[in-house]
Amino acid sequence: MLTFYNEHHALAASLHAAALAPLLSALERRGLGRIVTPHGVPLVSLERVHSPRYLHFLRTAWSEWLALDPGNAGRELLPGSWPVRGMRDDVEPPDLRARAGLYASDTRTPLTAGAWTAAKTGADCAVNAAHALRMGERGSFALTLPPGRHVGADWCGGGGFLNNAALAAQHLLDDGLQRVAILDLGPHHGHGTQHIFYARGDVLFASLHLDPQHAWPWYAGHAIETGAGAGLHHTLNLPLAAGLGAAQWFAALETGCVKLGMFRPEALVVSLGAELAAHFALAGADFLRLGERIAHLGLPTVFVFEGADRAGGTEYATHLVNVLEGFETAA
Amino acid sequence: MLTFYNEHHALAASLHAAALAPLLSALERRGLGRIVTPHGVPLVSLERVHSPRYLHFLRTAWSEWLALDPGNAGRELLPGSWPVRGMRDDVEPPDLRARAGLYASDTRTPLTAGAWTAAKTGADCAVNAAHALRMGERGSFALTLPPGRHVGADWCGGGGFLNNAALAAQHLLDDGLQRVAILDLGPHHGHGTQHIFYARGDVLFASLHLDPQHAWPWYAGHAIETGAGAGLHHTLNLPLAAGLGAAQWFAALETGCVKLGMFRPEALVVSLGAELAAHFALAGADFLRLGERIAHLGLPTVFVFEGADRAGGTEYATHLVNVLEGFETAA
Repeated sequence: MLTFYNEHHALAASLHAAALAPLLSALERRGLGRIVTPHGVPLVSLERVHSPRYLHFLRTAWSEWLALDPGNAGRELLPGSWPVRGMRDDVEPPDLRARAGLYASDTRTPLTAGAWTAAKTGADCAVNAAHALRMGERGSFALTLPPGRHVGADWCGGGGFLNNAALAAQHLLDDGLQRVAILDLGPHHGHGTQHIFYARGDVLFASLHLDPQHAWPWYAGHAIETGAGAGLHHTLNLPLAAGLGAAQWFAALETGCVKLGMFRPEALVVSLGAELAAHFALAGADFLRLGERIAHLGLPTVFVFEGADRAGGTEYATHLVNVLEGFETAA
Repeated sequence: MLTFYNEHHALAASLHAAALAPLLSALERRGLGRIVTPHGVPLVSLERVHSPRYLHFLRTAWSEWLALDPGNAGRELLPGSWPVRGMRDDVEPPDLRARAGLYASDTRTPLTAGAWTAAKTGADCAVNAAHALRMGERGSFALTLPPGRHVGADWCGGGGFLNNAALAAQHLLDDGLQRVAILDLGPHHGHGTQHIFYARGDVLFASLHLDPQHAWPWYAGHAIETGAGAGLHHTLNLPLAAGLGAAQWFAALETGCVKLGMFRPEALVVSLGAELAAHFALAGADFLRLGERIAHLGLPTVFVFEGADRAGGTEYATHLVNVLEGFETAA
């Protein structure tokens, strides 16, 4: 298991920033393989997933913000309006806050001084981890923050700016694969990843997550959402009740795995949130079992760390490393 | 000129709340006619313009907010996420903040304790003012806050919750007219009114406003937006440069009036923002002339006050009363 580590992750000042250190220590302690720094990937790799104008905004917004007022150095850039029903999203107003609204989906993803560097290095991790599979690795791990699965093709969200899992999947396709599957384990729905691949036939998106009827992001992740156009029936949402027991959680995982298998993917990307045990009745051994189940799919697999928004100690680090160890040790 | 005054306007604690008193004094001083309290209109009148679920949210959200935590009495209810591209707006999550996001378009329209009472009484003013035309009045005035023209069919905005101008126009139609025109004088685009009537053939919406390429609300109000379906060519946006001179402003008004005339409306609703002189080079006599020009359309006319978001003294009150006087004195 080759791990690509984003040493710039803390620059995003995201609500997840404290989550990486315990995980890095646990990984090193367990000795699951080398931890390396990623090579920088060209911007064109990011444009395979995100719109060029959204990327341009991310790269230039902070310097524009400072140019407006040097006092902005200490202020977050957040929008005040956004284009909802009956409004247009194909405009490009010069006003910076107007563009911030165009590219936002929530108020907890402020653009900060280091956001672009942190996000870009995270994308580097994801694409490098995907490429490691093409170089013969059976498994790889993108250890990065901020998280990416709440980021759509042209909107940021959930504290993140680039969709790392989507970038990993896209790289595998661009490097020659025909079909890639994404298994998103939640706990909150990965509405950004769904948005990116919703109408595409070359990526299967299967997700286990808290029922959005009762949990953020509310406006996506319902079972009725199954894809569109070429992507019809290539999205599988499995909304779950909070507090669900391990037996039922693994039954849902099995449903997802069956759907995955029928798609006959050539590689797998796993979006790995750190808070599963905070929302479902899963404990230490369950995470080993989860890693083993993923291994039994028999696919080269990129794991992407998707953050943790609870303080809650360092237990999650043990859980996550258990998943990786379960994957590694399963034949 | 019969004026319907919203005595509960200050309950919305909107950013416009201080704007009504000088206007009320100026009206009384000028002696333009009676100032009366509106009768309450049934909710079904509001459902002709706004979605029932949006109205239900407006009516019940504050008590739900208090039930969650009595300490919320001192807090504004504002959303944290909203349904943008790829997300659904046909869901109805129990979570109050999730619904607040569903029904919001900006962050400057917090729901407060008195918002519903202020908004409903404003709607009463607008519908009563419209009905006064049906009772034989040549002109009427809905003197209310918060403003309504930034409120869509199912989203609040610009500090307002119900679209008073749209409710006035709809009442005229429901009371037997075939075609009603709305003249929106800005200064910012009335994107809520446009949203409500965009696909309808029985209402013409003509608007003079600051170019949304450079002014809020950015995502609507461009010249290219001309209506859809049965409403195609029934929306006319005339985006103007800030600081535009009176001659050019009146030339744009003339364009709007010609379009209005071709529609052969049976009545007119005028959305009257108070800040025209702050954004365009218009002075005292220009406002008399504006009122006269509207009068020369020869239509029974409801004027709806749409607020002022600048402190800027009381000069606007003189301007607005000039418009009404110009209308009254023109034969």
